[in-house]
Amino acid sequence: MALANAKQLAIKERAQRVIPGGMYGHESTGLLPENFPQFLARAKGARMWDLDGNEYIDYLCAYGPNLFGYGYEPIEEAARAQAELGDTLTAPSAAMVDLAEAFVEQVSHADWAKFCKNGTDATSMAIVTARAFKGRRKILCAEGAYHGAAHWCTPIRTGTVAEDRAHIVFFQYNDPQSLEDAFKANEGDVAGVIATPFRHEVFSDQFLPDPEYARLARRLCDEADALLIVDDVRAGFRIARDCSWEKVGVRPDLSCWGKCFANGHPISALLGSDKARDAAISTFVTGSFWFSAVPMAAGVRTLREIRDTDYLERMEAFGTELRTGLEQLAQQHGFGLRQTGPVTMPMFQFDEDPDYRIGYAWSSECLERGVYFHPYHNLFVSAAHGEAELSATLNAAEDAFRAVKSNRESLKPNAALAARFGF
Amino acid sequence: MALANAKQLAIKERAQRVIPGGMYGHESTGLLPENFPQFLARAKGARMWDLDGNEYIDYLCAYGPNLFGYGYEPIEEAARAQAELGDTLTAPSAAMVDLAEAFVEQVSHADWAKFCKNGTDATSMAIVTARAFKGRRKILCAEGAYHGAAHWCTPIRTGTVAEDRAHIVFFQYNDPQSLEDAFKANEGDVAGVIATPFRHEVFSDQFLPDPEYARLARRLCDEADALLIVDDVRAGFRIARDCSWEKVGVRPDLSCWGKCFANGHPISALLGSDKARDAAISTFVTGSFWFSAVPMAAGVRTLREIRDTDYLERMEAFGTELRTGLEQLAQQHGFGLRQTGPVTMPMFQFDEDPDYRIGYAWSSECLERGVYFHPYHNLFVSAAHGEAELSATLNAAEDAFRAVKSNRESLKPNAALAARFGF
Repeated sequence: MALANAKQLAIKERAQRVIPGGMYGHESTGLLPENFPQFLARAKGARMWDLDGNEYIDYLCAYGPNLFGYGYEPIEEAARAQAELGDTLTAPSAAMVDLAEAFVEQVSHADWAKFCKNGTDATSMAIVTARAFKGRRKILCAEGAYHGAAHWCTPIRTGTVAEDRAHIVFFQYNDPQSLEDAFKANEGDVAGVIATPFRHEVFSDQFLPDPEYARLARRLCDEADALLIVDDVRAGFRIARDCSWEKVGVRPDLSCWGKCFANGHPISALLGSDKARDAAISTFVTGSFWFSAVPMAAGVRTLREIRDTDYLERMEAFGTELRTGLEQLAQQHGFGLRQTGPVTMPMFQFDEDPDYRIGYAWSSECLERGVYFHPYHNLFVSAAHGEAELSATLNAAEDAFRAVKSNRESLKPNAALAARFGF
Repeated sequence: MALANAKQLAIKERAQRVIPGGMYGHESTGLLPENFPQFLARAKGARMWDLDGNEYIDYLCAYGPNLFGYGYEPIEEAARAQAELGDTLTAPSAAMVDLAEAFVEQVSHADWAKFCKNGTDATSMAIVTARAFKGRRKILCAEGAYHGAAHWCTPIRTGTVAEDRAHIVFFQYNDPQSLEDAFKANEGDVAGVIATPFRHEVFSDQFLPDPEYARLARRLCDEADALLIVDDVRAGFRIARDCSWEKVGVRPDLSCWGKCFANGHPISALLGSDKARDAAISTFVTGSFWFSAVPMAAGVRTLREIRDTDYLERMEAFGTELRTGLEQLAQQHGFGLRQTGPVTMPMFQFDEDPDYRIGYAWSSECLERGVYFHPYHNLFVSAAHGEAELSATLNAAEDAFRAVKSNRESLKPNAALAARFGF
């Protein structure tokens, strides 16, 4: 069994010539099993097709942006209507105010919004705002947490300089003592704490925040007159219809949003409380396309869907059924499959698989059977994932477990991955 | 004479509540004459309309992105066709390779392309790439030049830390000695030189590069094994169908592009030569929407228009006629109007106007008559600016000169501007 791939191979060869390494960034398949397509032809709902016509049920959702299904008509209709009027203009459209109002209504801690393009724009704007708040310098940040790819935060430091992180202070997520120590060691100079709502790092099990740790972060920020920042870029609106830390009863001063609030149209946001408003006014941040109207119109419609539909409950029900079904199949076939994190953003890792050879083989076998999982990145469920996708996925997964079980002894680690990590 | 503004006032009041300061970034009208609308309703070709129905001939072109006219049908058609297939997906579409190939064909120095969203993404990626090239740290940068709004380059430093520019070394644009001194003072640690193709700063006359200075920059980079970066984000494809420094016979190793190569669809790019390819592979940079297909499809079509049409010659002819016409009118009415920079990106400043009161009054009077100029930012011409726009603009400008002349003695500086600059 092998997917057709003649067109894929041809375009990858062209890409090698005109794109460094053939591709870059989080959508590179360079570290994935070889059968993962680097380029796609189209997508609709929860499904996508590669250039050779292979169809996949997609569990990446564009690494987050697809929340209601690709090409979801109510949102696309709003986008097209705005595109008729104009997109990137000499000034924003009224949709910018509509969108800011919708966010302030939807997210409990928010009194205002600033829009940008990348998730990294939102996190970078957050730390500039926190530093402007009281003229302090130190940003406390959990060791190993992903907050984007700017000089101060990119996980691979090649081409950055030590000074880019001169005032980034690392502590251990979920470790109250470590957080207290970081505050103490930087007394009088702490501008803010930035934290993801839960831990969702590549190649790692996900884990949830300890509510006590989250509450301590809030208290220490208050005592030190520093700002608490929740980086909800990846998780936003897949955990709650509000900032994700509302679930643990903690309200930040700033929150960072991106990915999915315009269902794939390019826009991100920094939300803030009144306390941080003057700081937000005092800084200069901008971008050529930050005020484009189409993503804002799409965002207004997406926030309405978030507010008015049962999308979240449906995603949670789907994610729960998927988790239960996969757990049963894994047990039946003798695999220890760890499914971590929220059911709407699961991470799959295998027990006794230090070099990921089982996870890679299983993902690869699932792909051959039309299911696009990922062996080292968390997955995303969308509201377009329904009964048909669930049963097709579980069927494919079962066949994949069976295939991996039958050739388990002959598996080898992925060569690119082995080279990167030195297996 | 006064523009209708009831709807504008109402939405600005709403914006004040949910957007810090009511607006931020380069499209804020906070420092402009009061009659400039902060929000727009729609645009088409070279014209735009505000919420109260006032029509303007637009000389900002969305601060660059609008090159062929708002809603230019051949490009919009390509965008819509791609949107039907998909935009932000789990992997890029083939349009990414098409666009990289089109750039490599169009821009002489380019052997490869990496795409991103903001102009600042492209300049930030450029300096990371230059630093990765030989593991050096220093980036030589002309004093006062705008290269974006990231921590290392934002013109207003509130919320940034001194270390953000620890290895940014400033020299004087067009001053060979100053550039040589900067190289000497940082011998062995120079990663690259970044330069705009000409100087286009706010509140300043524009000026062109001295070819000798540009050639020296090339030679010093070669001698020091450093990379030469041209920041063409603002000027790209309005000076040449190639990197703007081809006009002075200097070919960079890296060039930064943004704004207009997808006619307003959100995308920017870093282009590089083979020499810089390995460095470009070694860094990690990414963004949620960097691989979205719609702006890439729009970019492919825009590059075809750039290659195959006389858009540039038409823009230059328009810009020359506008400059000549305004010069005559200014003289007739006794104003010293300095029109600097390329005719496709003119800057207007008045003689004997240290606090900008004349420029502000004239821009404001032009606006009342349907012409959207700008008193402190360079303007942009598009290929949609034609005979009808030219004559309407010159008529409006003449009436505006007459109006300003008649009340010249009673003019006052703009209050917000005076507060900012301490007039």
